[in-house]
Amino acid sequence: MSKVTATYLVHDKNGNLEKKAEGIALGLTVGSWTDLPQLEKQQLEKHKGIVESVEVLDDDHKTNQFLGSERTKGIIKISYPAANFSPDIPAILTTVFGKLSLDGEIKLVDLEFDKQLESRFPGPKYGIEGIRKILGVHDRPLVMSIFKGVLGKDLSFFEQQLYEQALGGVDLVKDDEILFDNPLTPFEDRVKTAKKVLQKVQERTGEKTLYAVNLTGRTGELKDKAKRAAELGANALLFNVLSYGPDVLQELAEDKEIQLPIMAHPALSGAIGSSSLYGIGYSVLLGKLLRYAGADLVLFPSPYGSVALERSEAISISEALTTDGIALKKAFPVPSAGIHPGLAPVLYKDFGIDSVINAGGGIHGHPDGAAGGARAFRQAIDAVVKGQDFEKYGEQHPELQKALELWGGVPVT
Amino acid sequence: MSKVTATYLVHDKNGNLEKKAEGIALGLTVGSWTDLPQLEKQQLEKHKGIVESVEVLDDDHKTNQFLGSERTKGIIKISYPAANFSPDIPAILTTVFGKLSLDGEIKLVDLEFDKQLESRFPGPKYGIEGIRKILGVHDRPLVMSIFKGVLGKDLSFFEQQLYEQALGGVDLVKDDEILFDNPLTPFEDRVKTAKKVLQKVQERTGEKTLYAVNLTGRTGELKDKAKRAAELGANALLFNVLSYGPDVLQELAEDKEIQLPIMAHPALSGAIGSSSLYGIGYSVLLGKLLRYAGADLVLFPSPYGSVALERSEAISISEALTTDGIALKKAFPVPSAGIHPGLAPVLYKDFGIDSVINAGGGIHGHPDGAAGGARAFRQAIDAVVKGQDFEKYGEQHPELQKALELWGGVPVT
Repeated sequence: MSKVTATYLVHDKNGNLEKKAEGIALGLTVGSWTDLPQLEKQQLEKHKGIVESVEVLDDDHKTNQFLGSERTKGIIKISYPAANFSPDIPAILTTVFGKLSLDGEIKLVDLEFDKQLESRFPGPKYGIEGIRKILGVHDRPLVMSIFKGVLGKDLSFFEQQLYEQALGGVDLVKDDEILFDNPLTPFEDRVKTAKKVLQKVQERTGEKTLYAVNLTGRTGELKDKAKRAAELGANALLFNVLSYGPDVLQELAEDKEIQLPIMAHPALSGAIGSSSLYGIGYSVLLGKLLRYAGADLVLFPSPYGSVALERSEAISISEALTTDGIALKKAFPVPSAGIHPGLAPVLYKDFGIDSVINAGGGIHGHPDGAAGGARAFRQAIDAVVKGQDFEKYGEQHPELQKALELWGGVPVT
Repeated sequence: MSKVTATYLVHDKNGNLEKKAEGIALGLTVGSWTDLPQLEKQQLEKHKGIVESVEVLDDDHKTNQFLGSERTKGIIKISYPAANFSPDIPAILTTVFGKLSLDGEIKLVDLEFDKQLESRFPGPKYGIEGIRKILGVHDRPLVMSIFKGVLGKDLSFFEQQLYEQALGGVDLVKDDEILFDNPLTPFEDRVKTAKKVLQKVQERTGEKTLYAVNLTGRTGELKDKAKRAAELGANALLFNVLSYGPDVLQELAEDKEIQLPIMAHPALSGAIGSSSLYGIGYSVLLGKLLRYAGADLVLFPSPYGSVALERSEAISISEALTTDGIALKKAFPVPSAGIHPGLAPVLYKDFGIDSVINAGGGIHGHPDGAAGGARAFRQAIDAVVKGQDFEKYGEQHPELQKALELWGGVPVT
């Protein structure tokens, strides 16, 4: 019988986690059980939620103090029959954490689809392998950079900035997620300009660059806009998935006429993932759900910048995006925010070769400008992949040297 | 210059809220300011975020202890020019709380659209007045009830349960939010059956009842499904808005071919609204945003059940849905969860005449069944509106009497 299994972290008031678990398993499915007549039990058996496991954890005094009462901390695992919901993310989330999200200190920390349910989801259209194939890059982490300060500027500014970033050798350039459709740099013009610029760079460097244009606007217009972008020569989309909904991403990913990799931005995710007591864990929110829904790349704060996730959380996202345990294409983890070339060794250690190193200030703030910043990143990655140390490598690579002088290196510990 | 103004509650590490506020106002708009050349300042002026106010609050020792460091608690208000975003909820949320939601202890607690921006949103199609007109009920809070245990049951069960609830005099009956499209009670069959049942009840009692059918499935199919429901005689929709996205609700509300009131369910809202440190306040999440987007009724936990919101939070949602400060139709607040007739006086005091009292167990668990439970609620409301006390009123109204005996009364304090 197909099912989804949800894992919850609870800080329970009443101290009986077995009872709580049973209450959830019944409350979110058939309502009640023990008092039902035998015939009804037979009828409802296949709809009943099952408590898979209950684990009591050590008391967390700091949390109890904060909440003002003694709590029993624990992990509860419950499976819900797929017979209860339609195989779509809104129905699954409503089932496993709809009403329940409002029921005190409870956080959804894992969500497992069985193979039958998993097969109802598209996963990434391109995934890691597909994107590597487009770019022709197979042997190193990719480098990505972000436009800086395009808001209020015109297309010539956009054009120049894209040119410099691509020229330095970044593999992907993304719009700022707060750049919406606007009269100075309209969506279609950005796509057309980028196509021209990136062709010019490719003729010069022989390297391909993907530009992820921010797909924005009303939900019902997104598909047509994405198709139009593809027609005009766009080669990737950026999407603020949580400002819309994961199912909207899935519909974009499933659409055969939208043959473009989709890069999911974590905007708004902090509102759901930040608390240790409530919400949805990042490995579910930005990891599993976005891979199921079809993101080809997923941005998230690295553990090392000013806006940072806990290292274990960042790694859990990355694992969810790339684990073999899910029979869908793998999505690129894109640790972001406050990244400079000196972080390449730790990022490589944490996220491995199949990741994208994404920088804004670490590219644009380079003493030689964005092109220099991009070169510094490529050099840093080359050094790391070749197992060479930065000091020596920097001697022969002036852009890396300058970056290390400005931002320092961060040793792998 | 049109704008949106966001209010944030922060627990800041660095102790300088003015600086933090300035950093947000610039970081989420033009990036930097002081070092810009004069010409660029002129060019970017109309895109620059403005710090409207900064207020330091008293230290919160419990929170500091929990977070493990001294924090400066405060309220920061920042306005963002509408020139920066398209007038849709995804763009607005991405602008004011996209990246920022990931930046430590920060919660979005208010969001004000100016009149120009407000005019870009539909608001409720019917609103409180429209729904009262459909029902012909103008002088009391409405009563709503929820199906119980339809999952795994067939249409005859659905039909019987709807009949009893409506017969007792509830104004609205809603599907359970975890009832999706399924072979036993398919969406279209529920609509057709409900139409037949509710006509029969109306012939008998002279009262109209709305049945809110749960609109579920893939995002791209919702509009067609809603139109089909309208054609088949549906008279209201239930929608798990946060499992999809507020803009999806808005597109349903804007569609002129979907002439049905929309009831927004708070499923998943706890994942965003529960924390005192992160996320989005309920008055924004379930209040303002859903009214802008076009919900006609909004459910939320009352302060009195087992799943409960703080009284002040529940009231803040209700105020956002009904305030004259927003020039859109008003939406019905629907305090829910664990409601029984004895709570009518406190609910009336908290939420006033323009509210819907919504019950599940408090209807179905009545000694005289659902019809008796519905009658007890109607009697309780009549007593409260007439200013009569329960004890006396109960003597002449046996259903209310039985409800009070079973669940007790809750005095207004």
